[in-house]
Amino acid sequence: MNCVEVKHVTKNFGNTCALDDICLSFEENKIYGLLGRNGAGKSTLLNVITNRIYADQGEVYVNGEPVKDNDKALGQLYLMSEKTYYPEKMKIKDIFKWTKTFYPDFDEEYAANLAERFGLKLTKNVKSLSTGYTSIFKLIIALSVNTPYIFLDEPVLGLDANHRDLFYRILLEKYSENPCTIVISTHLIEEISNLIENIIIIKKSKIIRNESCESLLAGGYTVSGSTALVDSYISGKNVIGIDSLGGLKSAYILGKKEEELPDGLEVSKLDLQKLFVQLTN
Amino acid sequence: MNCVEVKHVTKNFGNTCALDDICLSFEENKIYGLLGRNGAGKSTLLNVITNRIYADQGEVYVNGEPVKDNDKALGQLYLMSEKTYYPEKMKIKDIFKWTKTFYPDFDEEYAANLAERFGLKLTKNVKSLSTGYTSIFKLIIALSVNTPYIFLDEPVLGLDANHRDLFYRILLEKYSENPCTIVISTHLIEEISNLIENIIIIKKSKIIRNESCESLLAGGYTVSGSTALVDSYISGKNVIGIDSLGGLKSAYILGKKEEELPDGLEVSKLDLQKLFVQLTN
Repeated sequence: MNCVEVKHVTKNFGNTCALDDICLSFEENKIYGLLGRNGAGKSTLLNVITNRIYADQGEVYVNGEPVKDNDKALGQLYLMSEKTYYPEKMKIKDIFKWTKTFYPDFDEEYAANLAERFGLKLTKNVKSLSTGYTSIFKLIIALSVNTPYIFLDEPVLGLDANHRDLFYRILLEKYSENPCTIVISTHLIEEISNLIENIIIIKKSKIIRNESCESLLAGGYTVSGSTALVDSYISGKNVIGIDSLGGLKSAYILGKKEEELPDGLEVSKLDLQKLFVQLTN
Repeated sequence: MNCVEVKHVTKNFGNTCALDDICLSFEENKIYGLLGRNGAGKSTLLNVITNRIYADQGEVYVNGEPVKDNDKALGQLYLMSEKTYYPEKMKIKDIFKWTKTFYPDFDEEYAANLAERFGLKLTKNVKSLSTGYTSIFKLIIALSVNTPYIFLDEPVLGLDANHRDLFYRILLEKYSENPCTIVISTHLIEEISNLIENIIIIKKSKIIRNESCESLLAGGYTVSGSTALVDSYISGKNVIGIDSLGGLKSAYILGKKEEELPDGLEVSKLDLQKLFVQLTN
């Protein structure tokens, strides 16, 4: 089966363990969320997978071949990383051309079209871009390289609400027309909860969850209704968060829901961000 | 009156107008939100105010004195900027010491305490920090310099949900113990809506709103209730957004609310992020 496999990867920086015996795989044509707190090891993992840094132990395989210094295997992967490595004075249109020499399936026309939709001027150089437009520039390249596996490290960093929404829509457009494996690492968790099929959570350099979004969220539920009804219902339950809106309240609860709920209470699925905070605090 | 005043500031980059005749003032001991889409001109304005770049026209005054190349006036201001200018190999604890030579009121003990609360190691150097921890390191300095005016450009960039929440709590703690003027520029608007008293919105290099959060949000309201009730109520109204949760719905409406609403509908204040998207789209 085609997939990216991470086998028993360990990485230390001095006395700090960044990755501790990580095992996981990314299957073909699925969208993954890679979640974790600041410093949990997400970026280190993505850098090891794409051979930008070496693991102390363990191996990464792409469709069965080890990635370590293997150009053929590495050509299947693209990482939009948190650092920007492009020459500062190079114009964006020239970087697009340059990218095509490394990634032959890079679609220049599609990239130019995305730049127009995001309002990014191709004649600007990298140095003159704001934080938000630096992310936009990098995510346009990632969406246009057409490798089978795309890893996005904080793709919406510094993007305004309208641009974030546009990115999510474009990602789904692209995925439905041209399926590939997409791994998204982000801190705006609730915004991607409808995009991702599978969730991997890293906590202190170890994987603590690796399952479908559906099965993770099946560990609890949300009840909403009038404040009085919700307050009375949640008494004695494992409540991990509450939101209020006017006289209405929503409570996020871990555990199995009863068959029958009191009249006037509405049930919906758990909030992914609330669950994440609970699991990683 | 003590304040920072921006008078008729205009700034062009080549053919692009970044700031177009901006006039505004930041009063003593208030918290402002400076909002705008990517590329609207927010960072340019903050750089002009703190004399990092020069305006083509117009002036900025601190307590009546022009800031341009005026060290005394500039010493009243601190900008946590989106770019990181510190020497890459310098350790954080050394940068704290160094900062004190420029900002004599910098509180090293408070900064070390904040570093501990955020889990930032003082022996690390700037280059080794992730995006999230780079923001944490910069916001700790901003919260510790004790200048009367603090400008924060994207302070929560790359911070996880738990760290964002910690930052908002620390900001309010500090403000209540030691009031100063704080200007926050961010794209996570709804998260700061309870923090800020005044809102300035920049759109395409011009100020389009400059008023209290309360008066801006008084331009509309939110109704929540069962889907059927809300759908029937909003028919013919100016609805700028809708959220659904199970069988409940919230609709964000511009305009004046009637005295009496149908039974079963709850009214609350408008959602700031929804209003912002509407005003700037």
